[in-house]
Amino acid sequence: MHHVPPAPRPCHDPLLLARAGLSRLVEPTDPTAMLLLAALGPVAALEIATGARPIRAAEHPAFVRAAAGAGYGPRQVDLRRALARWAPRAPDLDPAEDLETAARAGAWFAIPEDPDWPGALADLGLFQPVGLWGRGDRRLLGFPAARSVAVVGSRDCSTYGRQVALDLAGALASRGWTVVSGGAHGIDEAAHSAALATGTARPVTVSVMACGIDRLYPPGNHKLLRAVEAAGLLLAEVAPGCTPSRYRFLQRNRIIAALSAGTVVVEARWRSGAQNTAHHADGLSRPVGAVPGSVHAGTSAGCHRLLREGTAVLVTDVDEVLELVQPLGAAPAPDRTGPPSVVDGLSDRDRVLLDALPLTVHSRPDHLSRVAGLSAREVLGGLRRLEERGLAEGAGEGWRRRR
Amino acid sequence: MHHVPPAPRPCHDPLLLARAGLSRLVEPTDPTAMLLLAALGPVAALEIATGARPIRAAEHPAFVRAAAGAGYGPRQVDLRRALARWAPRAPDLDPAEDLETAARAGAWFAIPEDPDWPGALADLGLFQPVGLWGRGDRRLLGFPAARSVAVVGSRDCSTYGRQVALDLAGALASRGWTVVSGGAHGIDEAAHSAALATGTARPVTVSVMACGIDRLYPPGNHKLLRAVEAAGLLLAEVAPGCTPSRYRFLQRNRIIAALSAGTVVVEARWRSGAQNTAHHADGLSRPVGAVPGSVHAGTSAGCHRLLREGTAVLVTDVDEVLELVQPLGAAPAPDRTGPPSVVDGLSDRDRVLLDALPLTVHSRPDHLSRVAGLSAREVLGGLRRLEERGLAEGAGEGWRRRR
Repeated sequence: MHHVPPAPRPCHDPLLLARAGLSRLVEPTDPTAMLLLAALGPVAALEIATGARPIRAAEHPAFVRAAAGAGYGPRQVDLRRALARWAPRAPDLDPAEDLETAARAGAWFAIPEDPDWPGALADLGLFQPVGLWGRGDRRLLGFPAARSVAVVGSRDCSTYGRQVALDLAGALASRGWTVVSGGAHGIDEAAHSAALATGTARPVTVSVMACGIDRLYPPGNHKLLRAVEAAGLLLAEVAPGCTPSRYRFLQRNRIIAALSAGTVVVEARWRSGAQNTAHHADGLSRPVGAVPGSVHAGTSAGCHRLLREGTAVLVTDVDEVLELVQPLGAAPAPDRTGPPSVVDGLSDRDRVLLDALPLTVHSRPDHLSRVAGLSAREVLGGLRRLEERGLAEGAGEGWRRRR
Repeated sequence: MHHVPPAPRPCHDPLLLARAGLSRLVEPTDPTAMLLLAALGPVAALEIATGARPIRAAEHPAFVRAAAGAGYGPRQVDLRRALARWAPRAPDLDPAEDLETAARAGAWFAIPEDPDWPGALADLGLFQPVGLWGRGDRRLLGFPAARSVAVVGSRDCSTYGRQVALDLAGALASRGWTVVSGGAHGIDEAAHSAALATGTARPVTVSVMACGIDRLYPPGNHKLLRAVEAAGLLLAEVAPGCTPSRYRFLQRNRIIAALSAGTVVVEARWRSGAQNTAHHADGLSRPVGAVPGSVHAGTSAGCHRLLREGTAVLVTDVDEVLELVQPLGAAPAPDRTGPPSVVDGLSDRDRVLLDALPLTVHSRPDHLSRVAGLSAREVLGGLRRLEERGLAEGAGEGWRRRR
């Protein structure tokens, strides 16, 4: 994980400016904008989306082909409707100013054309972020999703959920995994905190935010997010200054899912953002784990729902999480045989004989034969084997169980 | 469920006597004995097994065919070894005496040839019980497995597990389902108790025991088992006087599984009898449900194991249990949409607009357009719809969210 830092892209780079502009102009995953971007590239897409110029006759076929390829109907590609939606923001657009403000605040803007752009985001296809505003050591941006786990859950978590999030994220981080989450109160907060406390990966933790990178939201997590910035990364797809909204939270979740080898939902209510993240992960064919809890706890209802629907696999500890997120067979969860039992290694018949041995009085072999339903020979051989293991003791003609 | 009582089979009936004898002579599911029984019928099987006569040359082919058909090798069908195992009990055998003793104690003995024999036990194939010793109203024996659920779990259950068992069994019983369990302390006890308290089915509950029907084991459940006898059935495949053993408990579990449309494991340790019952049910293609719990509770480790292995489906309440045990589509668990939300029924764009509305100050439509990324027309239409629902209120040119 020692990246050679990419040569910084100059602030007047046309791709950087165009994508920064798009990140402010259009909402995440706006289909019409994403199709323009995919078909014509960032510069033309921004020119058209701001209304600086109309789409050219020569450009139109590529746009229509992209839409048809993505299965979109006429409504989503109706440029007039889209332009009406984008027009209110167009006059104030100043991406150069955004980039300078960000740089002054220690933030940067990365785009898919950069060599350190996280390759895993390409799995989002058309809905790859137009760019990522970031804080923290830019050299860490290329962290591998294959060594990251998303640990997510509800804001209003229970004491139980918080503890499980701390345990799982702490154990993952101490084994060198990057913990990705959403920076919210509750489960996210516990996941980031535990990773910061025990982590060895670079970055130890990554927080993908639903607001502008200049905001540390929620305010109560200010100190935590500062620590994430220092030891990991803060990322946002929306432009600086943007407020978080329900829509942006839901879209942000796809980035959390895409940046990780798998997603673990620690606690989630029946309706919750964490479930949304799980569905994004599932849609990306990334494995999803869910932690079970009490059937009386509303905080686990969403986890149980994911398990019943078959979206998630039940996980109870870090070994099971690692088995889930690593390629088949790379990390099978240790086989739990439970505490050893005195009957381990005994044949079925010897177990039956042991059951038949009295604890206090002594029993003769012929009586044991009748009680256990074993032949005389089986009883005599069995008593010898049980005696060798210290499980039976004889006195005269009788035998009893030895504690 | 109003059975015409079968004409009582006389105590000197040869089938009854032979099967009663076998129930004392051989351990449950003894493969050699079961093959003799399947090939030659109860009377010949008992004669041969007691050593009263050798197997005849004319009988041998049927025995060998039965063994080959069941996939058994030479060892399991080695009659000499089996006779050595059965011989110790043969001299004391007196099935007529057993039947009379049982009758005096109010118990009866039912056999597969009886018209009221539970048909579901035939699913056990070769390992159908040789007979069932019972207490309680014999007319209830033919109860349909299709209207029964096994509720099982560990003896050393938690307060949580006990509560869930009470809730589930109580709800099942009050909806007319028979609750089958094993009469043990812990989860079994809770399941029987709740069924007795709320049940409407006949029988309300059935306890399948691992010891002789004359014993009420464990002693601490004496009063409970008496109540089960009064309102339901006590059943045992081993002869009166037999003690419970580990082996008999494990074999008994197959009967619990076979007598039910499905099995719910409420709590189980990593190694436990309840898991064994679940595997029996699974082997019989009966659905298995498991109740989740805390990942810190050893009492739920076996349930989580069943869920991870895919043996069980996660269940959290009676609706999910009924969905599980009834034919596909007969009882879908109610769709839980959670508490209604103010955004239910709003279009995605109107939700975005609602998010963008300030709570205190008023915002002008052109500003809302920029914040929400919506066209002027979408904002004006959306504000009208939100106002109609009481979600937005305007003052002069400005709008805000209405709490």
